Amino acid sequence: MFEGLNLLVSENAADRIAYARDLWPRHHLAVRQGRKLGEPRAVVWPRSTEEVAQLMRWAGERGVPLVPFGAGSGVCAAVSPTSDAIVVDMKRMARWRRLDTAAPSLDVESGHMGVPLEERLNREGLTLGHFPSSILCSTVGGWVAARSAGQASAYYGKIEDMVTALECVTGKGDVVTLHHRTTGPSLVPLIVGSEGTLAIVTSATLRLHPLPSTRAFAAWSFPTTEVGWEAMREMFQSGLRPAIARLYDPFDAMLAKQGSVKKRGVIPHAPGRGSTVLRTLLRKPRALNALLESRPFAAMVGGAMLVVIFEGPSSATDASAASEIALAMRGRDEGEGPARRWLEHRYSVSYRQSPAVASGLFVDTMEVAAPWSRLGALYENVLRAVGPHVFIMAHFSHGYADGCCIYFSFAGSANDGGPWDEACERTYDRTWKSALDAVVAAGGTIAHHHGVGRSKAPRMDKELGSDGVRAVHALKRAFDPKGILNPGVLVPPVSPFPYPERW
Amino acid sequence: MFEGLNLLVSENAADRIAYARDLWPRHHLAVRQGRKLGEPRAVVWPRSTEEVAQLMRWAGERGVPLVPFGAGSGVCAAVSPTSDAIVVDMKRMARWRRLDTAAPSLDVESGHMGVPLEERLNREGLTLGHFPSSILCSTVGGWVAARSAGQASAYYGKIEDMVTALECVTGKGDVVTLHHRTTGPSLVPLIVGSEGTLAIVTSATLRLHPLPSTRAFAAWSFPTTEVGWEAMREMFQSGLRPAIARLYDPFDAMLAKQGSVKKRGVIPHAPGRGSTVLRTLLRKPRALNALLESRPFAAMVGGAMLVVIFEGPSSATDASAASEIALAMRGRDEGEGPARRWLEHRYSVSYRQSPAVASGLFVDTMEVAAPWSRLGALYENVLRAVGPHVFIMAHFSHGYADGCCIYFSFAGSANDGGPWDEACERTYDRTWKSALDAVVAAGGTIAHHHGVGRSKAPRMDKELGSDGVRAVHALKRAFDPKGILNPGVLVPPVSPFPYPERW
Repeated sequence: MFEGLNLLVSENAADRIAYARDLWPRHHLAVRQGRKLGEPRAVVWPRSTEEVAQLMRWAGERGVPLVPFGAGSGVCAAVSPTSDAIVVDMKRMARWRRLDTAAPSLDVESGHMGVPLEERLNREGLTLGHFPSSILCSTVGGWVAARSAGQASAYYGKIEDMVTALECVTGKGDVVTLHHRTTGPSLVPLIVGSEGTLAIVTSATLRLHPLPSTRAFAAWSFPTTEVGWEAMREMFQSGLRPAIARLYDPFDAMLAKQGSVKKRGVIPHAPGRGSTVLRTLLRKPRALNALLESRPFAAMVGGAMLVVIFEGPSSATDASAASEIALAMRGRDEGEGPARRWLEHRYSVSYRQSPAVASGLFVDTMEVAAPWSRLGALYENVLRAVGPHVFIMAHFSHGYADGCCIYFSFAGSANDGGPWDEACERTYDRTWKSALDAVVAAGGTIAHHHGVGRSKAPRMDKELGSDGVRAVHALKRAFDPKGILNPGVLVPPVSPFPYPERW
Repeated sequence: MFEGLNLLVSENAADRIAYARDLWPRHHLAVRQGRKLGEPRAVVWPRSTEEVAQLMRWAGERGVPLVPFGAGSGVCAAVSPTSDAIVVDMKRMARWRRLDTAAPSLDVESGHMGVPLEERLNREGLTLGHFPSSILCSTVGGWVAARSAGQASAYYGKIEDMVTALECVTGKGDVVTLHHRTTGPSLVPLIVGSEGTLAIVTSATLRLHPLPSTRAFAAWSFPTTEVGWEAMREMFQSGLRPAIARLYDPFDAMLAKQGSVKKRGVIPHAPGRGSTVLRTLLRKPRALNALLESRPFAAMVGGAMLVVIFEGPSSATDASAASEIALAMRGRDEGEGPARRWLEHRYSVSYRQSPAVASGLFVDTMEVAAPWSRLGALYENVLRAVGPHVFIMAHFSHGYADGCCIYFSFAGSANDGGPWDEACERTYDRTWKSALDAVVAAGGTIAHHHGVGRSKAPRMDKELGSDGVRAVHALKRAFDPKGILNPGVLVPPVSPFPYPERW
């Protein structure tokens, strides 16, 4: 089958299993039930742009679907290959092509992993300023594909603000280099967020920054989450740009005050007595949520908490200006401790999915966003919709002058009859269906930085409108006329949703 | 001809002359020679999105070209209708659709003029933060179409950073609302900068900001322009974001120090003795440029000058941090005066084109940009290439962490034999041809915020590369399959360049 295709290919069973999925929690639930996931026909590892172009032409002639693959940390099922598909792992393309220390900027191949990239830049006195919590298991290409946002996005921007040029191979096999902030229409934002459906990104030129020389840390408690986000809004609208600004709801704040080690402790390491208690609690999430959202609970644990870190030359002044705002809004000073502790443990919470599933639970996150004026409705709508199904907590991060992201964390389990695992899956589906509908009803966006994949694709028409969907289809036809690039992802009508239960 | 088209139409001769052009200086030169410009078949004034959609479908069925029109202040011949074309003046669509004071944001129709918009926002305690020097004669739709940048772009962003949603009518007659920073590919940046070639923008949702409560003013002189831009770079790369940062070369600085009234005085109000002297000087621009670029001249007038204004809560601290950088780089403190004077006269210099042409001269500007590492080459290349043809001066504005815009001003006249006006036109064409080639050779972008139109379109292939041109063509086919939207603009091979002399 692979004649004329001069690159590293594997049809090995282990490889095909390894590349059959990403970190979508529902994949985990399926595996726990012993259900086999769809496996690709093969996996390839191109080493150069030319090899990607050759592969693309080869696949186009044969109508073979291609699924681009970074490091597999996606959580929306953008990687879920059909049996005729080839997964294209980009990690062998990880060279630095050109570091311009004056601009400063770096042209780097898309398969480069996050941590080694940042570490090597730091040795040059530079930073990309991109710190997604997936940084240990994600690549430059994955960031671009999913419109990633790092923890310091308020100061350094999202990945879309960092990319000044992209080299990519379109579905036609053309190698194109697109530039941002040039004359005429900007094509870079078309590819950023397109999740491998329009082109495969082979390299990205990224804006860099000098490593920050100074930082300022602060935190305040607020009586309610709402007062907290009003303070956050006031800060952003007064022109402040904290590198980090994270507002935790009372339960999340209680965990954060106890330190991240305790926070991780909520999710059990392995099946045991703790997980039995948790499973029992999670059978009746409505009562648990009602308790933890109540004012008495908030008062008991000290309310919501806003943690900020400023970077750069005016960080100390900025922190005082922020403090003035917080104190004027009934904030209580919590000192530097919470922000320093957060920084120390910034990547600690992202790898607890498997132990949770092993304990008969599931955990998931949903990152949505809205203008400040609709943020309250978004928060309330989601709590009301999801509360009956799973335990839910939230923090507010990635602030802007005009709006904010809400990052919900869910923990759920079986809460109806029948076999446990199947019931778990039903809870999972009910949760997501009600959550996405609640977001759409509140006028929020269904994804801030995790992407759309397959799990959110059935609601993209609500988000884009039928006209927006038509525009995306027109682009798809222009860039990938044979429809070989990651079919089924992003916009549903391009190909039908592959799961029996359409959310 | 206009049966079934239920909107305000004029085939009146005066209207057709008035809408035959924008402010491209070469249009002026043609008119001065008594040459007739191409006039459109008719002018229409739609009042609603539905009327625009109706017009688009009507034109599509008949293959009639449509030329969208804001307030006509473009300087690159994006408005230059053929005799079968209809000009679509959008200024009757100027309603505020929705002001969201909490976000804050405004959905406003695209025909709204700049100054009334900012004034009305100011009465609400808000600002858009967009201050193009054309603000007195440009519209929201024009800003979006040409990727406009205002004087305070370093702090508030370019128009592309302000637009969160666009309602527009594609060449197929579909009404689409595109959102920025949503999930999946962002389509807003496709339309921003597309100069009416993909869709007609009917409304834009724009990010707003509270009116700044504080400002800080500063200015420093530097021995050379290069030291000045190194200081500017240092400021931006240290994280400072002055709302205004303008570096003037020695001649431009000399005028700025004398105040804008004197600056305007360089261009005569009307033909007279002053203009005769100027015309004589401009016959030998090479010598004049060499004199004014020389170190003795720089020393005599006090060197280059950087003027900054900071806005927002930390403006005083930011100004001190900037001062530290400037003084460490041999800057001489010039006090608050130059920045305050600049602010007072910020829109004074943009309306001197007609008197110049009436005096037998021409003036024009070219706004290009490059990463800091290529800025010196860009500056030198353009001076060397253009110096033999016209008198040239420059200022550096619209700074970023990774690069900067250079804004060149030219003044020229006839400098070969033959009739004066024709010789003027030859100087003009030679100037632009050599200038654009010099920009491309230095790796700069040929347009930072004036757009491409027809005047720069013949060099867009150098900028985009043949692959980029193909991508733009694919988009054109997707959004405007019949090719009725502003043909001839932006990318040359879509239709041939309409002037005999291809630059």
